[in-house]
Amino acid sequence: MAVYTKVSAEEIGQFLTRFDVGTLVSAKGIAEGVENSNYLLETTQDKYILTLYEKRVDPDDLPFFIAMLDHLSAHGCLVPPMIADREGKKIQQLCDRSACLITFLPGVSVSHPTAAQAQATGEALGNMHSALTNFTPERRNSMDHDGWRTLAEQCGPAQLDKIEPGLAQAIARELDHLDEHWPHDLPRSAIHADLFPDNVLMLGDRVTGLIDFYFSCTDIRAYDLAVTHAAWCFSEDGTDFHDPVSQALMTGYTSTFPLSDSERQALPLLARGAALRFLLTRAYDWINTPADALVTRKDPQAFLHRLQYYQTHPDIFKA
Amino acid sequence: MAVYTKVSAEEIGQFLTRFDVGTLVSAKGIAEGVENSNYLLETTQDKYILTLYEKRVDPDDLPFFIAMLDHLSAHGCLVPPMIADREGKKIQQLCDRSACLITFLPGVSVSHPTAAQAQATGEALGNMHSALTNFTPERRNSMDHDGWRTLAEQCGPAQLDKIEPGLAQAIARELDHLDEHWPHDLPRSAIHADLFPDNVLMLGDRVTGLIDFYFSCTDIRAYDLAVTHAAWCFSEDGTDFHDPVSQALMTGYTSTFPLSDSERQALPLLARGAALRFLLTRAYDWINTPADALVTRKDPQAFLHRLQYYQTHPDIFKA
Repeated sequence: MAVYTKVSAEEIGQFLTRFDVGTLVSAKGIAEGVENSNYLLETTQDKYILTLYEKRVDPDDLPFFIAMLDHLSAHGCLVPPMIADREGKKIQQLCDRSACLITFLPGVSVSHPTAAQAQATGEALGNMHSALTNFTPERRNSMDHDGWRTLAEQCGPAQLDKIEPGLAQAIARELDHLDEHWPHDLPRSAIHADLFPDNVLMLGDRVTGLIDFYFSCTDIRAYDLAVTHAAWCFSEDGTDFHDPVSQALMTGYTSTFPLSDSERQALPLLARGAALRFLLTRAYDWINTPADALVTRKDPQAFLHRLQYYQTHPDIFKA
Repeated sequence: MAVYTKVSAEEIGQFLTRFDVGTLVSAKGIAEGVENSNYLLETTQDKYILTLYEKRVDPDDLPFFIAMLDHLSAHGCLVPPMIADREGKKIQQLCDRSACLITFLPGVSVSHPTAAQAQATGEALGNMHSALTNFTPERRNSMDHDGWRTLAEQCGPAQLDKIEPGLAQAIARELDHLDEHWPHDLPRSAIHADLFPDNVLMLGDRVTGLIDFYFSCTDIRAYDLAVTHAAWCFSEDGTDFHDPVSQALMTGYTSTFPLSDSERQALPLLARGAALRFLLTRAYDWINTPADALVTRKDPQAFLHRLQYYQTHPDIFKA
């Protein structure tokens, strides 16, 4: 959540001459998204986001993200496609980094989603899944079920128990449970895989954009809904479940995309998996990030609470 | 250079209802300025900067800054005044901090000023000084000549010599020289006191705004020109003096505001003072900021090099 690479106004002005987007009027480094450097640009023509990809995004993955955004945009989904330069190129080099000029979308990210906002987000997610049924490129989910045990081992039991006594064993038990029951026959698709409120732009109750596709990948489609559920339907610290928000998210999703019986039955398990995935990555970052680093460490326990709620309330996804 | 206080979109939307500025369309935390939290807002009406004042700005100083910006704006200077709410109030409270909604100005900050850009900046500085001749509020310069010795002591000789061997003695000698020769009879005025290229917005060779008045204060007026000279007329690391930029800055300034003989004669000494001021504050921050903190540490030696240049080239300000 910071600007890692400082690009001078002169460099940005020069960079923009590759595109047919007008000349630079304003450039502000913005603090958002995963660990990329982002600038909000205004030109004589329009507004844009300039993103320089830092260590967390592999430049080899950019063609997949670009194809997915182009596909979604062509199918009427409100996403921010990368902009092609005069030669048709979308992946640029700037300050020794891969960089893209990206369509700016209006809207703000809500911090305390209402039911109406969750319903609109469910609809947008369903519409996105609908548009992706004929999208063929694939990208492995680097944070998929197969990788969770490794991630837990990289954290180490002693470090996990420092976050909360007993955490290592709770994770080990959950890994065993998920290994035993994880579904392997559900429909797979390109998914967003990180649709937190931060990554949904809204104006009032209306979705104006889905953003930050840098975890998007090919995985169980209903897992995307499970991730979104874990992200939207609890208080930030995970201690309060918001049932009306949950109901509205499900209503919104199923109004735009059908959920099969086997997908619906799998949702409690997929939601446990989603909660564990963010618990593990947050624990890993917690253990490996100095407390005063540029990146804000996010509390892993917020997702332990969600996991515990899903473990004890398997009925919340019943229609 | 980061966002210290996270304000939710809901809080910003609510905050804006105090003003007649339309409703929120976009809000991005921006990484700039001194240690405040800044958001670039777009509403249905216009663009604004929302600033929350963190530890470096004393809320008791805000009325001085506001009066100065209002005065300059009323006299046609391109500065960003604070916006009054429906009750006429400009200083707000938000997230337990003093906060202001501020006019957005277009333009970018150049990193490698040309002579033409320095001339335009000199003109803008002269126009500002001209507008301030009948501005009466006063604020002590917390970084003035009287405070430099204390600052050097707070750094400590051992820590200074860690930055560069011999630095403590070089500073001590310069302090003695300045104490002996510092002028006490030059015209005083409200000054910006920090007019680095970062704080000048430009479009091409045209100044579109002077910003970041949070060091503005009452001090020797020509010292403001000396600070601007030290900030604009060298390579960033201070090892290269850019004479054409220096000549252009002086031409621009004197074309809009007269420099008396005694002011001109004092400039070499004032410039040494300006270089020492930034050498000392950068050294202090260098010593007291962890290398991996949110704030980027700026190299103190860049201003040691400037100081050495001013010591050995007293003739550069001759008309």
